[in-house]
Amino acid sequence: MIPLKNDTLIRALLRQPTAYTPVWLMRQAGRYLPEYNQTRARAGNFLALCKSPALATEVTLQPLDRYRLDAAILFSDILTIPDAMGLGLYFADGEGPRFERPTRDAASIGKLVAPDPLGELKYVIDAVAEIRRALGGRVPLIGFAGSPYTLACYMVEGGASDDFRTIKTMLYREPALLHRILEVNAQAVAAYLNAQIGAGVQAVMLFDTWGGNLSHDAYREFSLAYLARVLGEVKREHDGVRVPRIVFTKGGGLWLEAIAGCGCDCVGVDWTVNLADARQRVGERVSLQGNLDPAVLFSTPQVIREQTGKVLASFGPGPGHVFNLGHGISQFTPPDHVSALVAAVHELSRAHHEGR
Amino acid sequence: MIPLKNDTLIRALLRQPTAYTPVWLMRQAGRYLPEYNQTRARAGNFLALCKSPALATEVTLQPLDRYRLDAAILFSDILTIPDAMGLGLYFADGEGPRFERPTRDAASIGKLVAPDPLGELKYVIDAVAEIRRALGGRVPLIGFAGSPYTLACYMVEGGASDDFRTIKTMLYREPALLHRILEVNAQAVAAYLNAQIGAGVQAVMLFDTWGGNLSHDAYREFSLAYLARVLGEVKREHDGVRVPRIVFTKGGGLWLEAIAGCGCDCVGVDWTVNLADARQRVGERVSLQGNLDPAVLFSTPQVIREQTGKVLASFGPGPGHVFNLGHGISQFTPPDHVSALVAAVHELSRAHHEGR
Repeated sequence: MIPLKNDTLIRALLRQPTAYTPVWLMRQAGRYLPEYNQTRARAGNFLALCKSPALATEVTLQPLDRYRLDAAILFSDILTIPDAMGLGLYFADGEGPRFERPTRDAASIGKLVAPDPLGELKYVIDAVAEIRRALGGRVPLIGFAGSPYTLACYMVEGGASDDFRTIKTMLYREPALLHRILEVNAQAVAAYLNAQIGAGVQAVMLFDTWGGNLSHDAYREFSLAYLARVLGEVKREHDGVRVPRIVFTKGGGLWLEAIAGCGCDCVGVDWTVNLADARQRVGERVSLQGNLDPAVLFSTPQVIREQTGKVLASFGPGPGHVFNLGHGISQFTPPDHVSALVAAVHELSRAHHEGR
Repeated sequence: MIPLKNDTLIRALLRQPTAYTPVWLMRQAGRYLPEYNQTRARAGNFLALCKSPALATEVTLQPLDRYRLDAAILFSDILTIPDAMGLGLYFADGEGPRFERPTRDAASIGKLVAPDPLGELKYVIDAVAEIRRALGGRVPLIGFAGSPYTLACYMVEGGASDDFRTIKTMLYREPALLHRILEVNAQAVAAYLNAQIGAGVQAVMLFDTWGGNLSHDAYREFSLAYLARVLGEVKREHDGVRVPRIVFTKGGGLWLEAIAGCGCDCVGVDWTVNLADARQRVGERVSLQGNLDPAVLFSTPQVIREQTGKVLASFGPGPGHVFNLGHGISQFTPPDHVSALVAAVHELSRAHHEGR
């Protein structure tokens, strides 16, 4: 493999000195970009786009051609795993992801099997290899998966939910059923991430989108424990090179100390967190990724610059910060505003790294 | 006025010793109760129910006739204020509240005026007086209002939102416009709560339903500052009796220390918060209200009892805890499960108050 020309992200994730703060954006290849919408139209739909390694490669690289981002992230979806388990993923217009066959009873849960990442999911692994070739070492490629609990939310609810009534009823009435789903999911996620690493991703991220809706105790038992189990199985290095791991529990700011101990190198935080406080709480254990409110990108280049400066100043001097939004970029973001953001991060962050 | 026969709630809010932990439930008069649905059907719709003092009194008392709750809460809606400002509140079937005339530009914002609580809102004040008479001193009556920021969310977005794109764009692009709305809202909320106190409510609660979606800094500037302003204007006592104040920012667990300093007597917390941690963080400054996950009520009486015991044990011994859910009760709650909850709180909490 070609060596990395820009390893700023990897170094920052591992709390090593860098010349500036690296930046990438969750969902950076997405609907706010006209070129993405064109490729998606060519693919026919979102799922067909995910399942074509050539088109997934194309859209993964689109934001890098526009912006001086410090990382690429595999274009895919967290629900590829339950889809490969046979639940029948589809996207209803304007309603987000749905499953044809949610898994809610002992019989269907008993039949769940972790998919072979080189079987049903081979299209993802092929995409990783193709993206690595296309990147030619420009920046690192981040692989990812959903957390076991977040996947279970979709598998049990059958789609997104605003109260998570079905899965929480299971959690409190029949916790053994939910633990069985989570065990299979943890095996599946670990195998999937290891296959992504084998094919060339240089860092991995676990998206725990819904863990933040659990109670303090339930989060530890039903989400964090399985994040730790996944990370215990995922390779720490590949070909002698560290593969840093990022965990992001949206709404998990109260639990940073616990998350920092789950085996990750970096904790993603949303915009409700003050980075100075967060840094003090996690100490030397992990780096931090985040956390500009994506809504700042609806303002003006001047305001974006000011707010970016505040986030950087809040983290303060020294290594261990990866700049990102506190959630995925909105489809309503003006593309030019992302240029202003990336420029501001690169320019304003240098003062926080000088002489280090 | 008749003296209170059960002042456990008031004492707990003020961190005074009690024999047991008082309990009430956010949205305790609501759709999970068949008798509520009958009254609502008679009224025609939700808004007509709110606007009839006789029917509002009827539904306010319904949960007290079923359960041994330690408080009544005025049946009303936080959006009565913007409705009285002329924004045209209506409820679309299954879509929640909407406004016919959202207020998004300088012209409409410049015209906003805090409504006279004895004018357009007199139906609420009349309901308070009627409920106090009907209660006959059984338990205290809690009055409430939405926070200035939460009201602004609905006023600017025109209804509920999942990304708050319109108000956050205003916040970052034209903060002066949003501050103007918040100033009017703060005046309106303070006058409204003072009128409720004048008519007989014995405690007041501010619901900051959406403040938790702000960034750490924006929360302080756009929500907490106006909560503090409201509380600075609201009467601390009536007829020589303290009127305790509760502030609840859903998703505000990271900011408890700041919230505890806004002039409230009690901070409401959702189920993501560990009460032992929270108690340590706020110290002697305030009491705490919460925080069972409402989804626990979907389980079984036995699990409800266990989970209730955990919440009580997490707060620990001594005064200053008001038991509640961490959010409004779900319409899908089996009514019998609420009996199990209330019995468990009363029974299991006595051990935490003995000898005090």
